[in-house]
Amino acid sequence: MSRQSNRATDSKKMNSELFTLTYGALVTQLCKDYENDEEVNKQLDKMGYNIGVRLIEDFLARSSVGRCHDFRETADVIAKVAFKMYLGITPSVTNWSPAGDEFSLILESNPLVDFVELPDNHSNLVYSNLLCGVLRGALEMVQMAVDVRFAQDTLRGDNVTEIRMKFIKRIEENMPAGDE
Amino acid sequence: MSRQSNRATDSKKMNSELFTLTYGALVTQLCKDYENDEEVNKQLDKMGYNIGVRLIEDFLARSSVGRCHDFRETADVIAKVAFKMYLGITPSVTNWSPAGDEFSLILESNPLVDFVELPDNHSNLVYSNLLCGVLRGALEMVQMAVDVRFAQDTLRGDNVTEIRMKFIKRIEENMPAGDE
Repeated sequence: MSRQSNRATDSKKMNSELFTLTYGALVTQLCKDYENDEEVNKQLDKMGYNIGVRLIEDFLARSSVGRCHDFRETADVIAKVAFKMYLGITPSVTNWSPAGDEFSLILESNPLVDFVELPDNHSNLVYSNLLCGVLRGALEMVQMAVDVRFAQDTLRGDNVTEIRMKFIKRIEENMPAGDE
Repeated sequence: MSRQSNRATDSKKMNSELFTLTYGALVTQLCKDYENDEEVNKQLDKMGYNIGVRLIEDFLARSSVGRCHDFRETADVIAKVAFKMYLGITPSVTNWSPAGDEFSLILESNPLVDFVELPDNHSNLVYSNLLCGVLRGALEMVQMAVDVRFAQDTLRGDNVTEIRMKFIKRIEENMPAGDE
C-alpha cells in the first residue's frame, strides 16, 4: 500500500488495546503462514523495517527533534520521545557498553503483549520482534545502521523486557534506502 | 494466543500512526495469503470478530458504561465512547431508519487509512473491514446480533467513510458465544 501524500497531519490519541489485539492477529496469521518461529521472527522484523522507514518521517515532523550528536542522545530520544509517542511508554536506557556503542531499553511493561501468553509450541517466537525492525528501519533513514534484538522478554518468563541496540556504522548520505 | 488473566489494567495512550502502519502490514499479508479481495474481506471481518469478543470486556471495565436500553443509546456509546477510546475519533451517528433499527456511523477521517492508497488491482478490497468484525463481535458479547458493513469509503473515492449498522435480534443470555 503506498503512502498518501496529502494525509492529515493531525494525530489521534488512542488507547493501546485495539492495537495490541490487532498485532496479535498479525502474529497469529504469520504463525499460520510460516513453518517455524525463526521465519516468523524474520518476517516481523522485515515488516517492522518497512514500517520504520515510513514512521520516521512522521516522527521527525511531530517531534521537532533535530539531528542527534551522539548515540547517547539517540537513545534518549528513542526512549523518551518515540516510545512515548507511539506506544505510550517510556523505557529506561541502561547497560551502556564501555565504548558507548551499545545500550539496552528496559520496558517495565510492553503494550504489545498485554493479552498474550506464548503457546508451548512457539518457544522460539520473538513475539514483539516487529519493534526491532521498526527501530532498525527508522534509524537507517537518519543514516544510522544499528543492530536491534530482544535480550529479555517477559513473555519468556523474564522480569522485564530488554531491547538491546548496537551501533554499527554511520551510513553515507548518498546511499539508497527503502523497502526491503 | 490466549489472554493473560493478570494483565495490568492501566492504559497506554498512543498516537495512531504505528497502529495504522501495523494494520497496513496485516492487510498486505492477507492480500498475499488469499486469492481474492472477497476472501481478504472475510478474513478481516473474522479477525475483527475475535478481537471484538475480547475487547468488549476491556471496554466495559474502562468505560463504566452500563446496559444500553435501546439501539439509539448503543449507537451513541459506540460513537462517543468506544471509537474515541480505541481510535481517537468520534464518528457522527446519522441516517436512522424509520423503524430505529439501522443507523450510520460517519467517519470524517479514518485513522486506519492515513497512509493508504488502494492499488488498482484491489478494487473490491474493504480495507478497514476489521472494524465491522470488531463491532459485530463486541456487540454479540452484550447479547446484540448486528449486521455491520461499509456503505461508503474514502479509499474508494467517497467523501466520507460510512459504516452501516443494522440491529438483527437480541441474543438469549444462555447462548454460547466465542471464537469463530
